[in-house]
Amino acid sequence: MRVLGIIVEYNPFHYGHLYHLKEAAKLVSPDYVVAVMSGNFVQRGEPAVIDKFARTEIALKSGVDVVIELPLIYSIQDAGGFALGAIGILERLTAVTDIVFGSESSRADMLEKIADITVNHSDELQEKIRKGMKKGLSFPNARKVALKNLVKESKLSLEPSVIDIIENSNDILGLEYIRALKFYNSKIKFSCIQRVGAKYTDENFKGKFSSASAIRKRLEVSDYSVLDFLPDESRKIIQREFDEGRGPVFYEDMSLLILGIMRSMEREDFSKFYGFVEGLDKRFFEFSRQASSIRELLEYVKAKRFTFTKLRRLTLYPIFKISDWLIRESNTFGPQYARVLGFTQKGREFLALIKKKSLIPIISTPSLYEKVLSKALSSKEKPDFLKAELYVEQFKRDIMATNIYSLLYKNPEYRKGERDMKLQIIKMI
Amino acid sequence: MRVLGIIVEYNPFHYGHLYHLKEAAKLVSPDYVVAVMSGNFVQRGEPAVIDKFARTEIALKSGVDVVIELPLIYSIQDAGGFALGAIGILERLTAVTDIVFGSESSRADMLEKIADITVNHSDELQEKIRKGMKKGLSFPNARKVALKNLVKESKLSLEPSVIDIIENSNDILGLEYIRALKFYNSKIKFSCIQRVGAKYTDENFKGKFSSASAIRKRLEVSDYSVLDFLPDESRKIIQREFDEGRGPVFYEDMSLLILGIMRSMEREDFSKFYGFVEGLDKRFFEFSRQASSIRELLEYVKAKRFTFTKLRRLTLYPIFKISDWLIRESNTFGPQYARVLGFTQKGREFLALIKKKSLIPIISTPSLYEKVLSKALSSKEKPDFLKAELYVEQFKRDIMATNIYSLLYKNPEYRKGERDMKLQIIKMI
Repeated sequence: MRVLGIIVEYNPFHYGHLYHLKEAAKLVSPDYVVAVMSGNFVQRGEPAVIDKFARTEIALKSGVDVVIELPLIYSIQDAGGFALGAIGILERLTAVTDIVFGSESSRADMLEKIADITVNHSDELQEKIRKGMKKGLSFPNARKVALKNLVKESKLSLEPSVIDIIENSNDILGLEYIRALKFYNSKIKFSCIQRVGAKYTDENFKGKFSSASAIRKRLEVSDYSVLDFLPDESRKIIQREFDEGRGPVFYEDMSLLILGIMRSMEREDFSKFYGFVEGLDKRFFEFSRQASSIRELLEYVKAKRFTFTKLRRLTLYPIFKISDWLIRESNTFGPQYARVLGFTQKGREFLALIKKKSLIPIISTPSLYEKVLSKALSSKEKPDFLKAELYVEQFKRDIMATNIYSLLYKNPEYRKGERDMKLQIIKMI
Repeated sequence: MRVLGIIVEYNPFHYGHLYHLKEAAKLVSPDYVVAVMSGNFVQRGEPAVIDKFARTEIALKSGVDVVIELPLIYSIQDAGGFALGAIGILERLTAVTDIVFGSESSRADMLEKIADITVNHSDELQEKIRKGMKKGLSFPNARKVALKNLVKESKLSLEPSVIDIIENSNDILGLEYIRALKFYNSKIKFSCIQRVGAKYTDENFKGKFSSASAIRKRLEVSDYSVLDFLPDESRKIIQREFDEGRGPVFYEDMSLLILGIMRSMEREDFSKFYGFVEGLDKRFFEFSRQASSIRELLEYVKAKRFTFTKLRRLTLYPIFKISDWLIRESNTFGPQYARVLGFTQKGREFLALIKKKSLIPIISTPSLYEKVLSKALSSKEKPDFLKAELYVEQFKRDIMATNIYSLLYKNPEYRKGERDMKLQIIKMI
């Protein structure tokens, strides 16, 4: 049995995603396709443009058999944390045999070598990165420079120039996926598919080959004609969501909430949350008072050594009460559950097959999350990674994320909360 | 020298307020008129319809010589706390000789007798109130019933029927002002003026005799023609504020902030803030998830024993981090400073006269609040009530209130914070 695992956000689902799915299927010929997908908040530190339920529907109509939610605590972390969560779920289901990810370089071999270096020369690398950041480099840049120097100095069997391939965001993610596979001592095989069309970060609209960023940018100025350049199923469902007033949802819609919370915080309150270090507590404290919008806030706080994406993620941490403890525990013990958002007929078969094998408790009915935990804890084969408090804290944040996200719908009717508890699991059968 | 003290909200300033000012002046013939005015949030638990700076201007153009801000911690408390703050400031300035308040009954003598009963029979009364509330009565109703029974049982020289006069909100406030005067052992004389026109709570529009509620209700449905029924100075300034996009501001504008904060709170988090007792923590926790707006939230939480006003105030406490400690200390030691929002030429004279006599430190330049504190603390006549931490905590909340209020302006340009620090004191000279 071959099971393909993919890690996605589908924000929104476009032809590039469809291409990836098809090519990955060609490569692996899987019996089942399992996707781990960011929930209502994505790695760019933003709410997804349509909610996780609609994005699940699209995925299931496009070739995915089971959609599992990447817990919030991982979906709004940097590439390393994001990968640790996503790979953790795929690994702990125990049945996934292959992972295929998109890549600009399409050099899985090189990415693996680099991953090995980062693991085997961890201390040296950390030291070099720290120095680079002290000079004002952002973490991604500092790491690139550090890796290059490491390769150069240590006469490893790599040309320093190959490090250039981790310039691009998909390659960076790919590198982190490989590192995460090593973290879990996983036997899952991985390969990559060259991305076609626009770069992830290319915000120019290019028809069917536009990046998700470019599409969102159009939606942000209410140009809904871009939907015509999305695969049919994606377009139809997104259109329905918009018609019902459940989107598009944008980061800017959170302005009052983010600025309001920050303006009611004293400087020392910021340090209760993860990541407000290196003067970021002071910067956010002061600039949240000065800025007239969150866009302005980010511009004021921005410095060479922080990427916008990182800063945007930080603005969510006080809302979701993301503490150092929660990040540290989550990145030590990995994801604590697999919450199923939806499945096809084949997906149902797959879930039945893994039900007893999965190391990670599977949540199909969110309101029963405590029962699922009790059962897992009392099981003879209770896995070492499972920590009751961590499980609860991770899961509560997914519920919280949906409750906050609902407030951003244009149609007030849908702003009622607890959608996770009220909506049925999505079945395409 | 006679100095008239009044306690106001001017939300917004209407003919009833003008009438009160003129009648009070006839009664007292004051050399100076000092108003203690709620800042950006008022006793109904709402943002004021226009900001405190504009309302100060109107007051100064209408016969008030000095406007002092009632600290947030008092302006969003129940009638008792509100009175304790306002009377505390007037008393501690040391120069106020007379207080005149509006009243439905206009029976200052009766109000004083009732106040005496509440002070002299405090324990008995508390016990009766507690019982009434256990039966499901709201605090105001439970107190009324308790007072009636107390009068009946104890054969005091009062007819139980006179207690009926504390049915109305101005009489209730009046009663609390008198109780507060007794709390401070004040020598200030008080009297009351019968209210003309609509009742405070009458929401029907009655032209020049409309209540502030009725006017706000019209503004809420964008009927700005009501401004024609306001005194000239009030109308002009309010019109200017609206034209510049600084109002009208409504409670509903806070929906995302209030629901967002509550949805990110666990049930136990509510008890960190004042007043979430008697199951209100549970009710707010649960209903904040279910409601689609704050209006709906209040309807869901509402029960016979809680007034809407009380519930609305509660929704502000998590934003402004109003703790039991802060309420208790504030109501024990009283207001810690008098922050001057504006003055006329005469007001300037008055401030010069009291500068050395005032028991309470006077803040004219908000950015210098720490210096004002240091000076007061090192003074030979440092008053017993002055507590450094309390002073800072009270003042920070006034600044916070303005920073939150600014986010509610329609024109994004004015959403920049720290208006307290940036705007000059308002001088009508």
